[in-house]
Amino acid sequence: MSKLRLSITMSLDGYAAGPDQNEENPLGIGGMELHGWFFPLKTFREMHGEEGGEVNASSAVVEERRANIGATIMGRNMFGPVRGPWPDDSWRGWWGENPPYHHPVFVLTHHPRAPLEMQGGTTFHFVSDGIESALAQAEDAARGRDVWLAGGASVVNQFLAAGLVDEIDVSVAPLILGAGARLFEGLDPGTLKLKQMRAVDAPGVTHIKYEVS
Amino acid sequence: MSKLRLSITMSLDGYAAGPDQNEENPLGIGGMELHGWFFPLKTFREMHGEEGGEVNASSAVVEERRANIGATIMGRNMFGPVRGPWPDDSWRGWWGENPPYHHPVFVLTHHPRAPLEMQGGTTFHFVSDGIESALAQAEDAARGRDVWLAGGASVVNQFLAAGLVDEIDVSVAPLILGAGARLFEGLDPGTLKLKQMRAVDAPGVTHIKYEVS
Repeated sequence: MSKLRLSITMSLDGYAAGPDQNEENPLGIGGMELHGWFFPLKTFREMHGEEGGEVNASSAVVEERRANIGATIMGRNMFGPVRGPWPDDSWRGWWGENPPYHHPVFVLTHHPRAPLEMQGGTTFHFVSDGIESALAQAEDAARGRDVWLAGGASVVNQFLAAGLVDEIDVSVAPLILGAGARLFEGLDPGTLKLKQMRAVDAPGVTHIKYEVS
Repeated sequence: MSKLRLSITMSLDGYAAGPDQNEENPLGIGGMELHGWFFPLKTFREMHGEEGGEVNASSAVVEERRANIGATIMGRNMFGPVRGPWPDDSWRGWWGENPPYHHPVFVLTHHPRAPLEMQGGTTFHFVSDGIESALAQAEDAARGRDVWLAGGASVVNQFLAAGLVDEIDVSVAPLILGAGARLFEGLDPGTLKLKQMRAVDAPGVTHIKYEVS
């Protein structure tokens, strides 16, 4: 059985991105700081073809999150700053020609677009018929492995409200964003029953994993 | 130097109490569940004159939070369900005649009321001239020890916005409340600079401590 596993970083006040996201501020104003724990890691640097970097308590968490993932689902704002209908095919994601996914990525959008095959095994598929369809396609593409729900907050909240998420691994960053894209917003109290699986005290971040039943 | 130390439990979606607080639901609908990690502890049972109970990773955190505290500040809704002017002196807190504070407690309210001396060293002082005054009085009463900022969310957010809090120890409960009194709400991004001091993985809860600079 393929699981849908959310892993995402949020500020202490619950935002997965700051306000005013655009091409200069992919994560909104102040949002980059959310990932201050991630950038220095050896794992992160390797993903982007760089050498060096730290190994600390976050390293094992990152490995655990990447293990057994066969496909990714993300929202359109996580894929890029373009809003509304695609003017052309020039926007190819934030990650260059060889994105760090190396498997099929399903991008939720209201505006159809042909699949985009990148280097290194990543193909972006644009899904315009809803979250259930994205999940079905991603599970199929994952071929028995799990699906990573990567963000942003809007898409994540839709999947949570629909009861489709099996596991939540949230990294709480020591940061107040004050505004932006809020995670876990608009959920009814009875929607999710959570069981804490583990918490990891790492430099500049706490990773908490929950099983959703 | 006396520190103002916040320790409080919030749901994963950031609420310190559920909606519709009243005498039957002191913490609002679903809010009691926030403290599901706390009630089974030996420390909790001892505070309320009961025997037995568990000792687990939360026990040391609770001891740490109680250590070196000489006074407490809380909001009026944490003290009781009465709203508006006090009709009489009949409401004496949620905690019976011997409350588990054993030191002066400063209750913020818009409506003056004479101090209320309880058994066991707890006296409730009602402060109607603002948070700075409450803090000055509490620091004075603490005689060199620290002041505990206990809740609820509204009062906590006022102290945070004013930059008066030195330490934040937040217990994240595996729970979605969906609505209620939201912690860390309405803060400007630059207000608080946080440094994570430690995180504790305990049964059914994660305790994260931050230093505020």
